[in-house]
Amino acid sequence: MIGDLDEALATTRSIRRRLAFGEPVDRALIRACLEQAVQAPNGGNRQGWRFVVVDDQTVIGQFADYYRKASEAYFAADTGMDPQVREAAQLLARRMHEVPALVVGCLAGRLAPGASAREMSGFYGSIYPALWSFMLAASARRLGTSLTTAHLAYEREVADVLGIPYETTTQVAAVTVGHILGGGVGRGPRRPADEVLAWNRWRESAG
Amino acid sequence: MIGDLDEALATTRSIRRRLAFGEPVDRALIRACLEQAVQAPNGGNRQGWRFVVVDDQTVIGQFADYYRKASEAYFAADTGMDPQVREAAQLLARRMHEVPALVVGCLAGRLAPGASAREMSGFYGSIYPALWSFMLAASARRLGTSLTTAHLAYEREVADVLGIPYETTTQVAAVTVGHILGGGVGRGPRRPADEVLAWNRWRESAG
Repeated sequence: MIGDLDEALATTRSIRRRLAFGEPVDRALIRACLEQAVQAPNGGNRQGWRFVVVDDQTVIGQFADYYRKASEAYFAADTGMDPQVREAAQLLARRMHEVPALVVGCLAGRLAPGASAREMSGFYGSIYPALWSFMLAASARRLGTSLTTAHLAYEREVADVLGIPYETTTQVAAVTVGHILGGGVGRGPRRPADEVLAWNRWRESAG
Repeated sequence: MIGDLDEALATTRSIRRRLAFGEPVDRALIRACLEQAVQAPNGGNRQGWRFVVVDDQTVIGQFADYYRKASEAYFAADTGMDPQVREAAQLLARRMHEVPALVVGCLAGRLAPGASAREMSGFYGSIYPALWSFMLAASARRLGTSLTTAHLAYEREVADVLGIPYETTTQVAAVTVGHILGGGVGRGPRRPADEVLAWNRWRESAG
């Protein structure tokens, strides 16, 4: 049980190059993953989350138009991104209209300008565990996912496309969903835990 | 494999009443959970996360003093919280100084005032999956966790206690860690997925 869980945590990665673009995903599979997602802890057990699952290709195409515009600007501005990640993300942007399904994670409310660090952290902490649970559950079902926030530069426009009430509901992220091409998924390149943890007192990282 | 993962996702809940207060947790267990946590996806694979693990009871006591002050103000202001959650959270606040260990999750950088929704979501989305992975890995090892952000009202003071460079590093959340008292952990009370999902177009929830 520990081994299986650890394997799932270590091998659920952003699937972009190996996504089966254009191959539909059964709604029952997506629903099953969301059934796990809604068990996640969240602030005060308010469960202010809502999930708009998009699998209509016309709607995905409208989303993709905004996504591409937003991500072009984003890539132009961001110079610190890992080149491999950038390449995969650009591929996803180009082919976003062929993604089989999208889960747009939303949370009731909207942070006021000048929200405190506590308010921001509490807000996003009330939906990101659920979205990550969704991705883990998807991975166990051989579905590949990738979480992206680039389109939020056009959050109002995407809200209009999906009918989301912008003033009272915040879009937090979109998760792309599709079958995975090829065999197993290995671990991602990460710094070991010992380099990023400290006991009882901050220390500068080994580099 | 699907069954085991689903079980872990559904039964990893905030452990507060059933936390073994005062019973130390082996550092090797906490490190093993962090080894899983750092495999989580994160924006641009920047891995800006740092984890300060506190298991020195003097330091936990200093944290607990700020935590109690912050959470008293929080509970007084928040009237919409589930009464059961409130009671458990108040218990945790009272006994915070007896918590065996704390993992303070930090992220490089600090959002500027007036940060956009995209910036905020991208920021918190680059650490919350790792924190939730930590909690899932802990649960598989029979450790109980609970994620809290209440102390961030005193983020500067806690940064001083832990030596965290406040200007360049944001504390996102603290996760309490301890052994779990009693038998298995069941599912939390949640609205079913069908009430919070919509296909292709927003719909008002069933209530």
